[in-house]
Amino acid sequence: MSESTLGKAISCRAAVCRKAGEPLTIEEVRVEPPQEWEVRVKILCTSICHTDLTWWKMQVPGPWKPRILGHEAVGVVESVGTKVEGFKAGDRVVPVFQSNCETCTGCRSLKGNNCSLFAELGLGTNFDVAGRDGTSRFRGGVDGEEVLYHFLRVSSFCEYTVLDVAHVVRIGDDIPIDKACLLSCGVSTGIGGAWKVAEVEKGSTVAIFGLGVVGLAVAEGARSRGASKIIGVDLNPDKFEMGKKFGITDFVNPKACGEKSVSEVIKEMTGGGADYCFECVGLTSVVSEAFNSSREGWGKTVILGVEQQTAPLTFNPYEILKGRTVVGSFFGGLRPKTDIPGLLQKHADKELNLEGFVTQEVGFEDINEAFKLLVQGKSLRCLVWMDRE
Amino acid sequence: MSESTLGKAISCRAAVCRKAGEPLTIEEVRVEPPQEWEVRVKILCTSICHTDLTWWKMQVPGPWKPRILGHEAVGVVESVGTKVEGFKAGDRVVPVFQSNCETCTGCRSLKGNNCSLFAELGLGTNFDVAGRDGTSRFRGGVDGEEVLYHFLRVSSFCEYTVLDVAHVVRIGDDIPIDKACLLSCGVSTGIGGAWKVAEVEKGSTVAIFGLGVVGLAVAEGARSRGASKIIGVDLNPDKFEMGKKFGITDFVNPKACGEKSVSEVIKEMTGGGADYCFECVGLTSVVSEAFNSSREGWGKTVILGVEQQTAPLTFNPYEILKGRTVVGSFFGGLRPKTDIPGLLQKHADKELNLEGFVTQEVGFEDINEAFKLLVQGKSLRCLVWMDRE
Repeated sequence: MSESTLGKAISCRAAVCRKAGEPLTIEEVRVEPPQEWEVRVKILCTSICHTDLTWWKMQVPGPWKPRILGHEAVGVVESVGTKVEGFKAGDRVVPVFQSNCETCTGCRSLKGNNCSLFAELGLGTNFDVAGRDGTSRFRGGVDGEEVLYHFLRVSSFCEYTVLDVAHVVRIGDDIPIDKACLLSCGVSTGIGGAWKVAEVEKGSTVAIFGLGVVGLAVAEGARSRGASKIIGVDLNPDKFEMGKKFGITDFVNPKACGEKSVSEVIKEMTGGGADYCFECVGLTSVVSEAFNSSREGWGKTVILGVEQQTAPLTFNPYEILKGRTVVGSFFGGLRPKTDIPGLLQKHADKELNLEGFVTQEVGFEDINEAFKLLVQGKSLRCLVWMDRE
Repeated sequence: MSESTLGKAISCRAAVCRKAGEPLTIEEVRVEPPQEWEVRVKILCTSICHTDLTWWKMQVPGPWKPRILGHEAVGVVESVGTKVEGFKAGDRVVPVFQSNCETCTGCRSLKGNNCSLFAELGLGTNFDVAGRDGTSRFRGGVDGEEVLYHFLRVSSFCEYTVLDVAHVVRIGDDIPIDKACLLSCGVSTGIGGAWKVAEVEKGSTVAIFGLGVVGLAVAEGARSRGASKIIGVDLNPDKFEMGKKFGITDFVNPKACGEKSVSEVIKEMTGGGADYCFECVGLTSVVSEAFNSSREGWGKTVILGVEQQTAPLTFNPYEILKGRTVVGSFFGGLRPKTDIPGLLQKHADKELNLEGFVTQEVGFEDINEAFKLLVQGKSLRCLVWMDRE
């Protein structure tokens, strides 16, 4: 926004992840100017999603740390690269890990939300960099020259970040920042899962495995579509009360099912199985239980959980042949550039309830406190304000 | 049809399967009158589906032989049980293994084609009997009192059979018998798979694994919907030429792929994967290959093959999360009572080509010849006429 930073590196604070599972350290870093297809964004607020936790804890070999995590945020464009159209300094934006270049085969298709831009550049699974050239825009460390890795091509745990234009969605200045931040990842994933992937309809029955933000957003999506029974499944019994305001009507605690499996209990509750089952945990065993809870004939299992999918998914072929469907999606099948503004409009029209997802707010210096709350299951979303007033 | 048989057992010829893999024996059997929810049908012609072959060859323990196989047929109602409505002696009918009672939750739903009538009676997986009481209507053997098992609740390899009314579809007298027989199982499964389960649309790309009748009917369904590329995959290279008349545009012989996997070849041919992949063999390994051939973002794998699904299906969770769908169905997701007449109308309107599926015709006494032709891969459908003139 300031003439003085244009084309220059910006020095600012970042919360850097240097060692798995240890507190992030607030450090001075250098954020380089955006390259031709990039925008540099001043982060206003960010929040912590389970995927951040997973990567924070992950003990993996390889040169992927130090890294700046974070991918749910709202910011303001500071400057744009030479090839960027449609964005200018001062625009309020939501960064999204799911790219949406609007020009590739996937983006031009009417189906799904698969942007193939980075895959075509050979960077399909490389989320550790800023943009199309496969390099980082962050420098830091003791000598100020250490390369810091990006995360999911967003890295919002920093006062400034650089994003490819395919990863940024413009929103109106009048949109409440806290609500917009929710739609950056978790809530959109859940709502999209219910509306776009499952297409939940009036009177249908829904079972949701895992009542974090994604699962509760599925509930909100199902509630707003008129589902008649929305069963939450979670090991934490407090989640029933918490889930009621998002539409959860029934609750199953896997630890309290006695001799029965969760799927047996759900089949009894729904007279044969739920119409739609959502896996929002990311565990192979939970996917199986969700699938087994789905109704013969037309039951659909939607996999939204990403966290710990380390084993192959296995299904009994005859159970699929009985008319069942299994479908997966990232970001709830939504196309960020059109669907995030669409969801914000639904919220403005009171069709979508976004109250209750933000459970705490802290300043940037307390970001490790926000991690702790999420780890302890005490928060849905804790907003982290970069400049708390 | 004849007053003289009403309420009495009928003695007639059946082709009985007594030993796995050995020729059926034409024997005199007794077909009892229909019970209250049943119809007794004089079979006009029948044909052999791969499921008949599978059960014929199957070395399983247990009291399931002797059995009267056969489930693709056309017949004429001879008499009806006391509770049967909507059918009378003389009606021309197509028997179908997929029940459609029109009153259960599944049949009343707008989704799928799952009839729960027999499941609710505790007979969900028992296809060895005629009807709702779980008993057989066939007697035979040396003493004439041996119980002969039904097959898929149809048993059309007999001059007369008894079916539950949920397994019978009335068709017009003007419908060509050979075309109607095709729609009794295999062709309907393939067309339904393309039209109803996958919803193939204009310009889409399709890969079909296994070019038997089901696979070729998928091709016909995809062709009639305007698919731009329809790739057939089969170990028998003759199937390419045979498939062209049903819409196959390209062919992959797994034995001729060299170092590459079939899915790699299909991904190259389609620029990333087919929009719709159909598994029409019934082998776990083929399901995997079909899934791997489906496009990231929206690729749909439709499982229609039933034959040899002995191992669990396994999928890489991240490949599903990239927007892929796996869906299975019996009978191509069709509801027999409404969809078979619908398909016959599409055929009358020239929207559906049913020419070319019948490759041979024999009399009932030569039914083992028809088995041989199918085993040798020399026939698609060999019609077996009960009274060949």
